[in-house]
Parts: sequence; C-alpha cells; structure tokens
Amino acid sequence: MHIGIIGLGKMGANMRARLQANGIEVTGFDQNPDVSDVAGVNELIETLPTPRLVWIMVPAGAVTDAVIAELATVLSSGDLVIDGGNSRFTDDFAHSALLATVGVHYIDAGVSGGVWGLTNGFGLMVGGSADQVERAMPVFDALRPAGPRDESFVHAGAVGAGHYAKMVHNGIEYALMQSYAEGYELLEKRDDLIADVPGVFKAWQRGTVVRSWLLELLVRALEEDPELANIEGFVEDSGEGRWTIEEAISNAVPVPTISAAIFARFVSRQDDSPAMKAVAALRNQFGGHAVKTAD
Amino acid sequence: MHIGIIGLGKMGANMRARLQANGIEVTGFDQNPDVSDVAGVNELIETLPTPRLVWIMVPAGAVTDAVIAELATVLSSGDLVIDGGNSRFTDDFAHSALLATVGVHYIDAGVSGGVWGLTNGFGLMVGGSADQVERAMPVFDALRPAGPRDESFVHAGAVGAGHYAKMVHNGIEYALMQSYAEGYELLEKRDDLIADVPGVFKAWQRGTVVRSWLLELLVRALEEDPELANIEGFVEDSGEGRWTIEEAISNAVPVPTISAAIFARFVSRQDDSPAMKAVAALRNQFGGHAVKTAD
Amino acid sequence: MHIGIIGLGKMGANMRARLQANGIEVTGFDQNPDVSDVAGVNELIETLPTPRLVWIMVPAGAVTDAVIAELATVLSSGDLVIDGGNSRFTDDFAHSALLATVGVHYIDAGVSGGVWGLTNGFGLMVGGSADQVERAMPVFDALRPAGPRDESFVHAGAVGAGHYAKMVHNGIEYALMQSYAEGYELLEKRDDLIADVPGVFKAWQRGTVVRSWLLELLVRALEEDPELANIEGFVEDSGEGRWTIEEAISNAVPVPTISAAIFARFVSRQDDSPAMKAVAALRNQFGGHAVKTAD
Amino acid sequence: MHIGIIGLGKMGANMRARLQANGIEVTGFDQNPDVSDVAGVNELIETLPTPRLVWIMVPAGAVTDAVIAELATVLSSGDLVIDGGNSRFTDDFAHSALLATVGVHYIDAGVSGGVWGLTNGFGLMVGGSADQVERAMPVFDALRPAGPRDESFVHAGAVGAGHYAKMVHNGIEYALMQSYAEGYELLEKRDDLIADVPGVFKAWQRGTVVRSWLLELLVRALEEDPELANIEGFVEDSGEGRWTIEEAISNAVPVPTISAAIFARFVSRQDDSPAMKAVAALRNQFGGHAVKTAD
Repeated sequence: MHIGIIGLGKMGANMRARLQANGIEVTGFDQNPDVSDVAGVNELIETLPTPRLVWIMVPAGAVTDAVIAELATVLSSGDLVIDGGNSRFTDDFAHSALLATVGVHYIDAGVSGGVWGLTNGFGLMVGGSADQVERAMPVFDALRPAGPRDESFVHAGAVGAGHYAKMVHNGIEYALMQSYAEGYELLEKRDDLIADVPGVFKAWQRGTVVRSWLLELLVRALEEDPELANIEGFVEDSGEGRWTIEEAISNAVPVPTISAAIFARFVSRQDDSPAMKAVAALRNQFGGHAVKTAD
Repeated sequence: MHIGIIGLGKMGANMRARLQANGIEVTGFDQNPDVSDVAGVNELIETLPTPRLVWIMVPAGAVTDAVIAELATVLSSGDLVIDGGNSRFTDDFAHSALLATVGVHYIDAGVSGGVWGLTNGFGLMVGGSADQVERAMPVFDALRPAGPRDESFVHAGAVGAGHYAKMVHNGIEYALMQSYAEGYELLEKRDDLIADVPGVFKAWQRGTVVRSWLLELLVRALEEDPELANIEGFVEDSGEGRWTIEEAISNAVPVPTISAAIFARFVSRQDDSPAMKAVAALRNQFGGHAVKTAD
Repeated sequence: MHIGIIGLGKMGANMRARLQANGIEVTGFDQNPDVSDVAGVNELIETLPTPRLVWIMVPAGAVTDAVIAELATVLSSGDLVIDGGNSRFTDDFAHSALLATVGVHYIDAGVSGGVWGLTNGFGLMVGGSADQVERAMPVFDALRPAGPRDESFVHAGAVGAGHYAKMVHNGIEYALMQSYAEGYELLEKRDDLIADVPGVFKAWQRGTVVRSWLLELLVRALEEDPELANIEGFVEDSGEGRWTIEEAISNAVPVPTISAAIFARFVSRQDDSPAMKAVAALRNQFGGHAVKTAD
Repeated sequence: MHIGIIGLGKMGANMRARLQANGIEVTGFDQNPDVSDVAGVNELIETLPTPRLVWIMVPAGAVTDAVIAELATVLSSGDLVIDGGNSRFTDDFAHSALLATVGVHYIDAGVSGGVWGLTNGFGLMVGGSADQVERAMPVFDALRPAGPRDESFVHAGAVGAGHYAKMVHNGIEYALMQSYAEGYELLEKRDDLIADVPGVFKAWQRGTVVRSWLLELLVRALEEDPELANIEGFVEDSGEGRWTIEEAISNAVPVPTISAAIFARFVSRQDDSPAMKAVAALRNQFGGHAVKTAD
C-alpha cells in the first residue's frame, strides 16, 4: 500500500516513520522543504497510485479547510481522504460533503498517543463508511499498537464519529491530568508529613486503583525534577477541551470535572485575575478588609 | 438596659456606638486601654447590674474560648452571655454547657453588616432559649436596622442555630461575590465591545434580577477605581467559608458554587500553582508541549 | 412618540402596558389576533409615523431572524429597529448589517425584570450608535424604573453590547440563584438545629451582606410554601446561560460558579444520570461495592 | 514469619490468602466465628511468636479505636501493630501515641487494589519508623504485586503518612472515575453519531493518553452491560473522599475536580434536590416560569 501524507510536523513525521517501519509506502508533503518528499500537493497526487489514499495531518480549522478545498480540486473519483488532525467533528460534515461532490471518500480519524506514538503505536478512533474504513485498514493497523485491533482501534460510527470520540478523549484527558495534579498539590503541601512525594506516585504504578499511563508520565517527570522546580504552572489548552465543553452545553451534559480542568488552565495563564480583583474590591467595600494594592 | 461588651475592635466598637445611640447603656472592655471603658473583666462585671448581660465580640476560637472560660469563673447564676463573634456553631455547644454549670445563660448571635452596620444596622441570627432571647430583645432591636423586626432578626433555633445560620450566610456571600466577579471578568475581557463596564453594573441597580447590596458595593468600588487598577486579585478567606464546606461534606449537601468561590480564593493567593506545574509537566511528557521554565 | 411592538407575549404585553402608562403611544402586532392591535406587519408599519420606531419582542433565533428579514423589506431608510428580545449578541451583527443595507438603524436592548417589570420598570442595557440611542431615549425612560437614569439604563457600547451585557447579567443571575439554593439546602438539611428556615431568609433582608432582590423573591416563595413541598427540583435553562459559558470558553475566562449553576440544572432534569451509572459500575468492578439495580 | 490479622472481611480475608500463598504464616481473628481461626484476641495474641506482629483490618473510626485500645492492654513492649484499614491519618497520631505508652510500635498502611488485590497484589503506602517498616517488609513484599518494590510500595514518611497518601489516592480515584463518567455521558448522549460506545472505550486501552486500569474496568463493565441498563446512577461515598476535601480546605489547596466528584455522588443519592427546588421557586417568582409540582 502507498499513502500520501500532507503535513509532516511532529505528529505527521512520526506517523510517516511508523507507517514505513510497518511496510506502508509513504510519500509526504510539507510546506517545509527540508522535511518534504515532494515539491507540492500536485506532485504528491501524481506520485500516488489510483485510487489514491491521502492522510491529512495539519492544524485544525483554516489550514485543514484549505487543504481539503485544494484536494477537492486535484483528487479523482474513488480517492480517499483521511483527516487525522484534531479537527472539530462538525467540520467533518462540511469536509465530507465537499469531497463527495467530486466522488472522493472521507474518513475522520482521531489519533492519540502524542510523541510516544512512534514507538508505542497510536490509538485510533475513526468515522466513515464501513467499506472505506475496511479499505484503509492496513494503514490503521500499521499505525496502532500491537495487540488485538479492538483495543487500539474503533470504527466509532459515520463521518464525524472519530473526531467526536477523540474530542471526548481529550476532555477526559484534561480532567484526568487535573485529578492527579490536585493530588500532587495535596501531597506536596504536606511535605512536613510526606517525606517522599515522588516515591508515592511511583508506588502507585502497580496494584493501585489509580494506575495509568498518565501516572507513569508523572512519575517520569518527578524523576527528572522531583520538586518540579524548573517548570512553571502555566498551561495552554488546545481547542478540543473547549469543544468538549461546548458540546456538553449543547447536549445538556454536566461536565464539572472537565470544565474545572479547563478553567484551572485559564487561571494558570493569568498574571492577575480580574475576577479576584473584583472580589477583593467587594470585601474591602463591605468589611473594610485590607486589599493588596497593585504595584 | 445596661450591657457589657468584651472586645472593642472594629465590629465591637461600632456595636457599642450603635447601642448607645439607641439608648442602651454600654460598658466596654478591650485589651487595648485606649478604647476600653474599664481596666479589666472583673471591673466590667462589677459595673453591670445583675442579672448581667455580657456581649462577647472577640476573635473566634482560642480567644473566645478563653473569654468564656474566664466569664464562667466571674459571672453569677442568671447572668446571660451572648457570643456575637464569628464562632463556629459547634463551639457554641461547649460554651453553652460550660456556662450552664454555673447557671449562666447563653445565646449565640450571628451578626452581618460589616463596617456599614453602624449606620445601617446589623442583620442578626440568634440561637438560644425563647426566654433568654426575649430578655435580650432590647439589645437586638437597638443593633438591627429600622423596619419590621423579622426582616433583620431571627430566632433561628436553639443554641448554635444563630452561628450556623451566619455560617451559611457567609457561604452564600462567598458564592454571590464570585458570581458577580465572573460577570465582571466577562465584561472586562470584551472591552472591545463593552465601552462602559462600570456603567453596566451601575445600570443593574434598579429593575434587574441581579440587583443587590453587593452589586451596589461593586458599583461604589468601580466608581472609585473604574478598572480596579489599584487592587490586586489576592483574596483572603475567613474560617466561615471553610466551615460551610465542611458542614456540607458532613451532611452530603452539594455546594459547587460555594466551593468554587473558596477555591478561587485559594488560587488567588498562590505565586505559582503546584497543581498546574504538575499539569504542565504531564503535557510536556506526553505531547512534547513546551513548558515555561521557572526563572 | 409612537412606537410599534412586534410580539405581545408575556414580556411584550407588559412593555406595551408600561409604555402606554408613561405616555408613549403603542401599536402592537402579535400572531395571536386576540392580543394584536393590527392584522399584520404591513398594517403595523403603515400605522406608524415616519421615521418609524419598531420594537421586536419575539423569541430569539429563527423567529427574530424572520422578523428582521421581513422588516428589511417593508421599512424605509431612517427607520429604527430595536431588538428587545433575548437574542445572542452575535446575531445582532448580522441583523444590524442586514437592516443597514436598506438604511434602517438598529439597537439591541437587553431587558431585565421579568413579570415584575410592568410595575417596577425594566432594567435596560443597550448597544448601538449614540444618536439612535438618544432618539429612542423616551422609550427607554418610559420602560425603566423611576430614579436616576444611569441606575437602570446603560448605553453599553456599539451594536451587540446590549445583548452581551444582558447575557452576562443572566449568567450572573444563574450563579446567584444557585448560591442561595445551596444555602437553602444547608439550612434545610439541619432542621434539627434550624427551627425556622423561612425565618432565616426573611431576616436577611435588612442589614446583611446577602440582601438582594432574589433573596426577597425567595422569602416570598417560602412564605407561600415554607418547605417548598409543592415544587419539584426540576429546572429548565434558557439559552443565555449556555451562551455565557461559550463566551467564557472563547475568551479564556474561568466561570466556575456560572458553569456549576448550569450543570446543576442539567442534572435536575435527569431521571437517571448516565455518568453516575458509569461511576457506580466502576465502583462495582474494583471494589465489589453493591450497586442499585435499575427496576 | 507469623502474623496475626484482626478483621477477616472481604479485604482481610483476601490479604490472609495472599500472605499465606506467599509463605507468611497467618492467624486470623474475626467476630464471625465461621471465618475466624481463633476464638478471641487473647487467643490470637497467645498464638503469635514474640515480638508479635498484628495487622488490623477493621472499619475505620470507632471499631479501629476499640481494637487499638484492646491491643494496648494485651500486647507487650516490642510488638508491632499495623493498621491496614482506611483510618483517617489524624487517627494514627492518637493510635500510635496510645500504643507507645506500652512500648508497642505502630505503622499505618494505606492499601489499594480492591477485590483484585488477591490475585494482582495490593499497592501499599506506609508510615512509621524506618526500622519498624524494615521489620515488616516480608509482609509488605508478600502483599504487593510482583515487580520492583518501589512501583507498588512506598515508605511515605512518619506515622500518618501512609494513610495520608492513601487518602489522597482515593481523592484522585474519585476524580478519575468522574472524568471517565463524564466522557461516557458525552458519548452516550450522541448515540445518533457514536454507533459503538463500548467499542470506543475498548479502543482506548492501548496507545491513547487516557489508558488506565479504571478504563479497563469500565470496558469490563460495558462488556457485561453495554448500556449500563441494569445499574442505577446511585453512588455511595466512603469517608476518604470527604477527608480529602477537608484536608484540602485546611491546607488551602484548590481541589475542583475532587470536590466535583464528591458532589456528583451526593446528588446521585437524592430523590429530589432541595437546592433545585429553591432555584425552581425563584425562577417561578421572577419570571413566571412554570414549575413542576411535586406529586
């Protein structure tokens, strides 16, 4: 099998490498000529056998929109496009519909695994028609970890289902990270009692209810920097966590831990909190409580 | 009527002034001789007509414990002690029992109103027996605002009920303040759209669903400092908010807004968040996401 | 001044009545002929003196879109449309742009006050150009409560600012209601200690920090039904609370109390919680904890 | 090595079995004669070689207090008591001090693993002096899973540290479970899009960021009952989650996800929510919104 990849950033490059290591021929295109196999999308398309299989791995939103739009002009009926990026599932409907006008098939693939995917394999959640998913299965099998297929791959439903599942996955991920982080702070705050905070996390890796891959990563982080002294509590967020909240709101699903995780990130990025300035001002007004004046 | 007050800090002094302005004779004792009417508790007790009425207005916890213990040795059967401080309601049971051993009655009085109480009057929630509450009514009537008694005073129940009600009052207060503060931040963040943030709050004072005294105080704060430029988003918390959470936990009452308000204050006082350092470390581990290094 | 109102539901009818009581001539149109003054929009338009002033008070979203679209075909250059409904502020941009193509001016007006607005007056937050706001000021003055204009009216900014401010107002309102409700449950749960729960709320109306109009309404509700025995804990939500969360997410504003209030409403409407079924299933898996089986 | 166990409930019996399987001689006592090896504590003590090693596995609180008090009267100087139950870490200080008065040593051991511990081994977090921990190491090694000791065992600090770490472990556990549960509801709500909800969870087991033991348990639960149709969303909570919140409050640690998880359990057990009755009553008061009347 021979596949084209558009987008050879950190994730795309790792996927190319894993596909090649598992016997899939790959031609990749990236705006950065240093990493690109071909000079442009047209050359990529010409290189691929028909019917073609093109995997997109570019930033969600405008960039993905543009790539899909370009592909709709250069691909042929019967080709298949897989969007493996972090697109919002609602975008899949438009992308799929646009490509369908020229007879091109579409699969949305949520991909998890981060930088570890190259060696561990990537967890995959895909949406699309059964026959197209079957057609691309050699690619999915090459990307996913060893072991039973259904433990690292799911055909979650029709177009959009893959990215929806990935969005939910990321919402859960945010909340899981915040859960461990609150536990870390509870342990760290009582360093008068807990003599070995990293050791506690390390000891949770076998036998306990909280063992997980994220826990293992936290153990690694604490081995490198036992007091996290070299890291600032400043945390970005990507779109998927936000979309999760928006979908929750749209579907009347209460998501108190996922939203708490997002809000904690928002706060982490503030130099000063307008809200807490307002609370401080209120306390000062009714109670004569002292306020800290800004410098 | 002639009452003794122990504790002439900001609240105690204001209460003495309001009582005197409303025809109650007051003798006050404070550790600070500059504000005290008498040299010590013994002199205070001797000054008061029997059966005596003593109002305590000192810090909750150890200080109140000590004052109650001392009063138990100097007061006589039939005297009445009112704890108007911010004691935890569970302390009232011990205080009441100790005083009862020497025949001294006890009322717990939750007092709201802050620095405005002197002129506006104080809202009062009391716990104790009906006859003792009736006996102290002239004092309560002098302290509370003008208007119908039941709109500023409640005999909430037996001993402890007054401070329990005050504790809940303060828990609500925390959540109300946080509610307005979140609204403030939502308006302030869109200063591209909202040309007059203070004006919006000002306009909510009549006719809207959110009108309240706290809103009026926020309007005042914004008139003094329209962008809250001179105030830092650093907010202390007193014990009552924490007790509210603990009681909620004990009674299996979900209190998501009250706890959110407390947690926001905790975060406001952190230079850096250990929890968010842990989240940043985790993101870095799995995604290779850049972290901000501490200086 | 003579104004047309489209939409004579609960709010629209009350506004017509208040405008008329304050000397504004009103012609109203509603789909329901029993309450309508005219047979249709065309007749309404013909009735009004030019340049016309039309106030829209219909459900946000598709209905408002349709009314605006119709008005764009029948109004003339120089006319002014005010959308007083609960439209999303982002809709205002499209509505304003559409009307501008035919020279018709636009103001968005957030209106608060509920069923009490008829007698108390309505709190108003408007967005638009200064000259159009000035032009409509007699209408705003007739609708708002007596007292200083800036305590019940604000020209918050350009088009969209009125509905944005109203959206934030409603977000705050949700959180305020939840705050009092948590306090209610904390008092109610300890009815062994608190002998008079309604009395506690009643006593908070003067002098306390938590006094507000919502508190007064809760006092009224508890006077009618002291144990809320005749009311179910089932709470709908309108769009504005949801939009508030979405805007908060878009602008990276942490809103833990507002979101908690929304989520509590979502939960209140569930017969059984899928999430809690999952938690129960998990506990059963790892701990052998008994589960309640569904009937 | 020969150890006595007091308490042969689900956990104690499993621990006895695992210890015996790993070459530790065990004599167990339980109030239930059907499972007990001896008739009483005195007989248990007489059976053990000196200096003795007694493991307590009874309900935290009053029962553990009573067992410790009894042991203080029958054990001899140099004996060692290990409390493996879910005691609050603050209880350890009193238990340790009481036993020290008769020269008996004390270790607190937090134990995780649930019903799976028998076959998988138990994760262990202990507090106490280095020499006593060393002395009991054969017992810990027999209980914990195979693999490196520091991945399933930690000497977390002095007395109390073991149960503190276990308390935090359980707090994290609550939040992790809630995180997955919210994700479950988000998937389940969109069954129009997600054709295979159990399949999504199953596919997350390899390669994804959210893989964990709890995820595996959820997969098992969904294999047994794909729609969780036979389980009610009613979730108990044990003391440790509550203590986690209380410690967080005491130490000013924000724990929004852990508290959200606890509150969700509280709500899950309510037939009707007093708080939401209050919100419904408020909405009815200001907006004339319909309420659902209780039957």
